[in-house]
Amino acid sequence: MRASTYPLVDAAEAAALVLDRTPVLPAEDVMLADCPGRVLAEDLIAPAQLPPFPASAVDGYAIRSEDGGGRLRVVGESAAGRPLAGELPPGAAARILTGGVLPQGADTVVMVEDVEQADGWVLVPVGFPAGRNFHRPGDDLRQGELVVGRGEPLGPAEVGLAAALGFPRLRVLRRPRVALMSTGDELVEVGRTSGPGQVVDSNRWALLAALREAGAIVTLLGVAPDQPEPLRELVVGALRDHDVLVTSGGVSVGTHDLVKPLLESLGEVHIGRVRLKPGKPFTFATLPSGRLAFGLPGFPVSSLVTFEVFVRPALRKMQGFRRPQRPRLPVRLGYEARAAGDRTEYQRVSLTMEGGGLVALSTGSQSSSRLMSLAGAHALVRVPPGNTGIATGTVVDAIILSLPA
Amino acid sequence: MRASTYPLVDAAEAAALVLDRTPVLPAEDVMLADCPGRVLAEDLIAPAQLPPFPASAVDGYAIRSEDGGGRLRVVGESAAGRPLAGELPPGAAARILTGGVLPQGADTVVMVEDVEQADGWVLVPVGFPAGRNFHRPGDDLRQGELVVGRGEPLGPAEVGLAAALGFPRLRVLRRPRVALMSTGDELVEVGRTSGPGQVVDSNRWALLAALREAGAIVTLLGVAPDQPEPLRELVVGALRDHDVLVTSGGVSVGTHDLVKPLLESLGEVHIGRVRLKPGKPFTFATLPSGRLAFGLPGFPVSSLVTFEVFVRPALRKMQGFRRPQRPRLPVRLGYEARAAGDRTEYQRVSLTMEGGGLVALSTGSQSSSRLMSLAGAHALVRVPPGNTGIATGTVVDAIILSLPA
Repeated sequence: MRASTYPLVDAAEAAALVLDRTPVLPAEDVMLADCPGRVLAEDLIAPAQLPPFPASAVDGYAIRSEDGGGRLRVVGESAAGRPLAGELPPGAAARILTGGVLPQGADTVVMVEDVEQADGWVLVPVGFPAGRNFHRPGDDLRQGELVVGRGEPLGPAEVGLAAALGFPRLRVLRRPRVALMSTGDELVEVGRTSGPGQVVDSNRWALLAALREAGAIVTLLGVAPDQPEPLRELVVGALRDHDVLVTSGGVSVGTHDLVKPLLESLGEVHIGRVRLKPGKPFTFATLPSGRLAFGLPGFPVSSLVTFEVFVRPALRKMQGFRRPQRPRLPVRLGYEARAAGDRTEYQRVSLTMEGGGLVALSTGSQSSSRLMSLAGAHALVRVPPGNTGIATGTVVDAIILSLPA
Repeated sequence: MRASTYPLVDAAEAAALVLDRTPVLPAEDVMLADCPGRVLAEDLIAPAQLPPFPASAVDGYAIRSEDGGGRLRVVGESAAGRPLAGELPPGAAARILTGGVLPQGADTVVMVEDVEQADGWVLVPVGFPAGRNFHRPGDDLRQGELVVGRGEPLGPAEVGLAAALGFPRLRVLRRPRVALMSTGDELVEVGRTSGPGQVVDSNRWALLAALREAGAIVTLLGVAPDQPEPLRELVVGALRDHDVLVTSGGVSVGTHDLVKPLLESLGEVHIGRVRLKPGKPFTFATLPSGRLAFGLPGFPVSSLVTFEVFVRPALRKMQGFRRPQRPRLPVRLGYEARAAGDRTEYQRVSLTMEGGGLVALSTGSQSSSRLMSLAGAHALVRVPPGNTGIATGTVVDAIILSLPA
């Protein structure tokens, strides 16, 4: 048994290196229903104006404003999708419904609440101004206007705009296909009885959830074979139709690690140890054809924290997100954050609103095996290496996982 | 044509009424892979302690601390899942790998970096203390401890904990099945050519995205028939296997609205108009067997804002979320928010970090048809009715849709 010979890489340097080596995936055309959460591969420019015609904003009567104060004959109706045929004559009104085309000749709409109606006639207020209660063509969007920029994610409003402009599908970046594998002779399937020294393979389910939330399409490879050749066959086979390999466990310094030698033989291992707590044994390799491999540590917290720090930003960059990082917000420390000596530490905190700002409280023991430190955690607080720590009350930029409701 | 006879309900009252009338759906057992985003129907209590045995935190040697300083014979190995057989004799050491069981007799683990190794022997430091570098049983979780509470959402850590404790599936609340229908004679399918006065049915795609984000399982009913009997047949059929009906359009005061009379005949319409901008024609009905119907206005912004204010909290309550509302954060107004006279207004804003806090800027014209006011919007700012407005620089509680990255 020997200690790892991989150099200890600074945590921020390692994160930058991973992102730098991460490719953006090719684009594909996707139907609107599947676009939410995806990122545009090219700017979406309005090919036409919205609304395309002058459209009533209310239910009421379309009139010529110079007829205000008069008793006007109702000559017809302009309902949504069923415009009035021909021009509105002077001295007349047309019933108009929300979304209906303003008839030619009319220049304003009086709300139904503001008129007096009698059989076939309507009395409109005196001096009713032109240009009321309808949307002009191009009011909402001008032709040639940038609707959603390349690299921006698509949500309900963006998808609605694309539909309104007549796009049944959009060109977005592909989602990464990730093969997920656990390693470790001690692992048993959830629901099976554990023998002496055995534990359930829980990382598989935690990482599956984290990968999907990040937008990946995941294939579960299960627990890795404990012999080099079957392991190589499984991994090489999976890499044929996956962009990323994610493993957990088996990257420590021990004698039974088969993953690192395999990655060494398949591609280039750039990172084998990181000055990070939790997550020191984090491993990153590039493989042929732009494929990536992430070797996450086996301890549950270490695997999820290294996922957040290294893997998630890479997966988001692959999908074209212009800002692949989690959002950050200033939070006031409600505890004294002790640093981990020579390693950058990502501490898990819960957030509460207090005195008009967010206050971060530790989720308790930050042991790398204690997954409870991540249960209900709202944010990660980065504590730089060194023995100084960060004093209670200090405001720091926290990495937001979710906001307290 | 007549003005609506439904009373104008205060926006906050309407939101409270909807939530009050919304049932929580029944529970179901769901496999771990499908649990993320779901909510526990019952407290998850640890049936056993974690770790279940004393487990090494590092790669190194398990020893008896009283043997520190000695040259110890290596008698075997405790790898993860393959414990050392029998007790560690005095004056001996066992190779131990991360996750390996601490052998009986041993009381501490020396890291591989801290020993000198020679053929079958190991030299350990003098005075090495007991209790180092291993996790004690129950350190991470005690038997009987509350792991995740009822009403709390499940994320990667929570699912990982459930797996570690041996639960292959969890009891969570059912997701709402929603039938989504657009109404309006002016609507054409996206991708088809629009005739005079016609517009694309864009709300279908915007609301589909919003509903799915909220956790709903959506069936698209398309554009509603424009005759009462076919419409009734479609809706009654859909309600057989859906919990919620959501319609957009056709709830204004016009002459062609078929939805409101249908809802009146099927159940009880509680809200037909709201003192809200945008979204005044919002309609809410309860139907037999705890089913709900939401009639959203046809204008794109009105439909999405009323979705946020009324429908999303209801869908979250149905799924068991203890806090069904979006999170709120204090933001400083970077513009003067003018109120909408007698209606509560939900203005769309983008957020930026400035001077250590979030600043809200208007997304431009807040017209109910201008979907661009929601594109890239990070939050909604509630402006109470009245002509006072809210002055620039005022700090208000904003409803957070997403954070700026």
